[in-house]
Amino acid sequence: MDVSPAKVQSDASEVGRPVHPGGFLAGEAGKSDHVKAGRIVDFPVSVVLPAGGTGERTGLQTPKQFCSFLGRPLISFTIQTFERVSWIQNIVVVVAKENMDMMMDIIQRFQHKKVQVIPGGSTRHRSICNGVMALGEEERSADDKPKVVIVHDAVRPFVEEDFLHKIAVAAKEQGAAGATRPLVSTVIATTSEGYLDHSLERAKYRASEMPQGFTYDVIYQAYQRCTESDLEFGTECLHLALQYCGTNAKLIEGPPTLWKVTYKRDLAAAESIIKEMLSQSTCLLTGESTPGVRSADVFQKAFGALDMKLDVIPDLMGDNARYLLKAWNFIQVSFHSSCLSEVEDILVALDATNQALLHPPIVIWVHLKRTDEKSMALAESATIMNLASTAKLRNILLYGIEVHGSEDTDRWERSAPKVAEMASALIRDRNPALVGQLLQA
Amino acid sequence: MDVSPAKVQSDASEVGRPVHPGGFLAGEAGKSDHVKAGRIVDFPVSVVLPAGGTGERTGLQTPKQFCSFLGRPLISFTIQTFERVSWIQNIVVVVAKENMDMMMDIIQRFQHKKVQVIPGGSTRHRSICNGVMALGEEERSADDKPKVVIVHDAVRPFVEEDFLHKIAVAAKEQGAAGATRPLVSTVIATTSEGYLDHSLERAKYRASEMPQGFTYDVIYQAYQRCTESDLEFGTECLHLALQYCGTNAKLIEGPPTLWKVTYKRDLAAAESIIKEMLSQSTCLLTGESTPGVRSADVFQKAFGALDMKLDVIPDLMGDNARYLLKAWNFIQVSFHSSCLSEVEDILVALDATNQALLHPPIVIWVHLKRTDEKSMALAESATIMNLASTAKLRNILLYGIEVHGSEDTDRWERSAPKVAEMASALIRDRNPALVGQLLQA
Repeated sequence: MDVSPAKVQSDASEVGRPVHPGGFLAGEAGKSDHVKAGRIVDFPVSVVLPAGGTGERTGLQTPKQFCSFLGRPLISFTIQTFERVSWIQNIVVVVAKENMDMMMDIIQRFQHKKVQVIPGGSTRHRSICNGVMALGEEERSADDKPKVVIVHDAVRPFVEEDFLHKIAVAAKEQGAAGATRPLVSTVIATTSEGYLDHSLERAKYRASEMPQGFTYDVIYQAYQRCTESDLEFGTECLHLALQYCGTNAKLIEGPPTLWKVTYKRDLAAAESIIKEMLSQSTCLLTGESTPGVRSADVFQKAFGALDMKLDVIPDLMGDNARYLLKAWNFIQVSFHSSCLSEVEDILVALDATNQALLHPPIVIWVHLKRTDEKSMALAESATIMNLASTAKLRNILLYGIEVHGSEDTDRWERSAPKVAEMASALIRDRNPALVGQLLQA
Repeated sequence: MDVSPAKVQSDASEVGRPVHPGGFLAGEAGKSDHVKAGRIVDFPVSVVLPAGGTGERTGLQTPKQFCSFLGRPLISFTIQTFERVSWIQNIVVVVAKENMDMMMDIIQRFQHKKVQVIPGGSTRHRSICNGVMALGEEERSADDKPKVVIVHDAVRPFVEEDFLHKIAVAAKEQGAAGATRPLVSTVIATTSEGYLDHSLERAKYRASEMPQGFTYDVIYQAYQRCTESDLEFGTECLHLALQYCGTNAKLIEGPPTLWKVTYKRDLAAAESIIKEMLSQSTCLLTGESTPGVRSADVFQKAFGALDMKLDVIPDLMGDNARYLLKAWNFIQVSFHSSCLSEVEDILVALDATNQALLHPPIVIWVHLKRTDEKSMALAESATIMNLASTAKLRNILLYGIEVHGSEDTDRWERSAPKVAEMASALIRDRNPALVGQLLQA
């Protein structure tokens, strides 16, 4: 039960940290999660997050928990998921010794809090065991010792607070609780020669997934009493709780969002989920002018046809500044190229919120040009490219779309679906290689 | 054992069909697959492809086998995988009655051959059973009856010929053979009250996957002898072969590519795999001019840095026409805007091969402009937009990239990585919403 003392408590300061609690999506969704009835947990809960895996199954050099999605490592998404849960007191991340520095760097860079990083063991059980032991160390006061420990995987970033709550409460009541999922394939037993011996009746079995929860006493004793062989070859914490503490875990069927990033193909799936979450709502800024407001109706219809939610506001002043903290996509409609100053205002405002630390926000300048304005194209193109290059350094992705002949209402109504299609493609793809382009609708 | 007679044999004519055998990727990779040593199967093999699922688990309205990837339904990819295997004689696709018309339309539209579509039953076993019975119908000659039947899923499009070969040969030898994969999660047994009863030792069990192979006699008899309860509640063909024919199937561990599109997130994973396959190699056309050839070196270095393979050729004349059948991405480098005629030539040539029937090819016009050429921008922009609109109707995606100041070698060498980054993004994303754009590098 040797736990290396080389642990470091993260101390990211409050300064420069986004003001919202986080979660994948900032703002209202996250906030309302926090006040939902029945979610209060009145006992101390800690999390152990084993992240020592080498990612063999993805076929990639980087272990999958450190693979980046939109510039941020997967484990940072998982940590954020726990960090935003008010009733979780601290998170112990267990990583391979050689990845300690990288992990500390991630904690600093993405300003995570509540996180303690400790070195892992040679197997999954040894790593989890190190994490559990670290929670029980003597320097902690009695109050600080968790009542319940949730064990999760660094590569399951999409677990929801609701489900964590169920696991924590069931663990406190029963001593142990674990997530399950229905089996996707039939499970079969093989003979030693590689032939079918028998197949299991699917309905009687479940796949054991994460998160799992334990009272501190159960998980601590399970690891104290188990054998070297368990630590070396075992994989199932619920099994240790049963065998060494006589605790039959409560099993709770979890949602598909519990899935584990395992294979290379799962990286694409994870990226797509993150992008979809960020694309959910877009803020359309019309400026103060009458044509801007009129164009908004046409846009809203066009975006609606693409299943994209659009909030229409004149600008980000006053109360509307709250959109800076809840939207990840902004479309500024302008009628004059001089209105690029409106775009600059958005960039400055976004930068001030520090939102872009977590995900790259998208800003699209839609320039509704009159037919006689054509000659400006090159100058605008250069201006937006320059703005975009600067913004990209702050992780904000800026694009432009030019619409010609906007003085002709019919023509504009015909163009709007194309503008919406292009804007929606830019928002869903979040492709940094195309920033600064002035696209033609 | 009622099999509806409402089956239709597809009769897509040879005319207008791509000349290569197909597979996901046309051309050399596919061809060399066919001549690899040891791959000859000297007995008749048929495939039964149950595709009656309703796709509940994806949470989508469209059953997942009919979800489109780059404009083509998943099941068409799976059919193509079998169609390209020379030793597979025919493919019986079993679909729900209400999807028969849609399925016939897919067969026609993507010009599939060797395919027979029959209506399914109310459960998976009943559908497979219908497929097996259809293979044994009296109008078939004795020669036409398969020796081995491979059963696969419509939603596992990425199975490889190599592995099908292993299954077919083992099935002929042993009577039955099936693919397995290691278990990703621990399998646990639950008590009736929802508590952990025990966990299975992972090493002794496997997940049973597809494809599975059977001699015709074994699978036919298994379905003749099994009970209504088997047909109603069972899921495992290997189990029927064991129980009713005493055949212990040979189990063969398959590669991760056998995975099954099950959840909504898997749609993103499948699309990403298809796009990655199509992005593997790109054809750079330099034209006949000396600067074109010189620029090719710079490009090749820049693409190499992005892990993209680039074949450099002057044009698609003569022997180089073979690239039309093996590449899915073409970059035409031009020094004059009049050279858009070169792009038109590529579009015409691609259209003639009918390649775009299967996947959308990408054509990128890279225009290396001198500093004094700026004024042409608008005219070029309109021309490429028009070309792109027409090409899009034929499923060819055309984009443009303008590079300024190309007469300055240093400047051009600095621009090349950016051009490569943009071209690579266009190729990997294959986004139809952005066709016709003239991007600025």
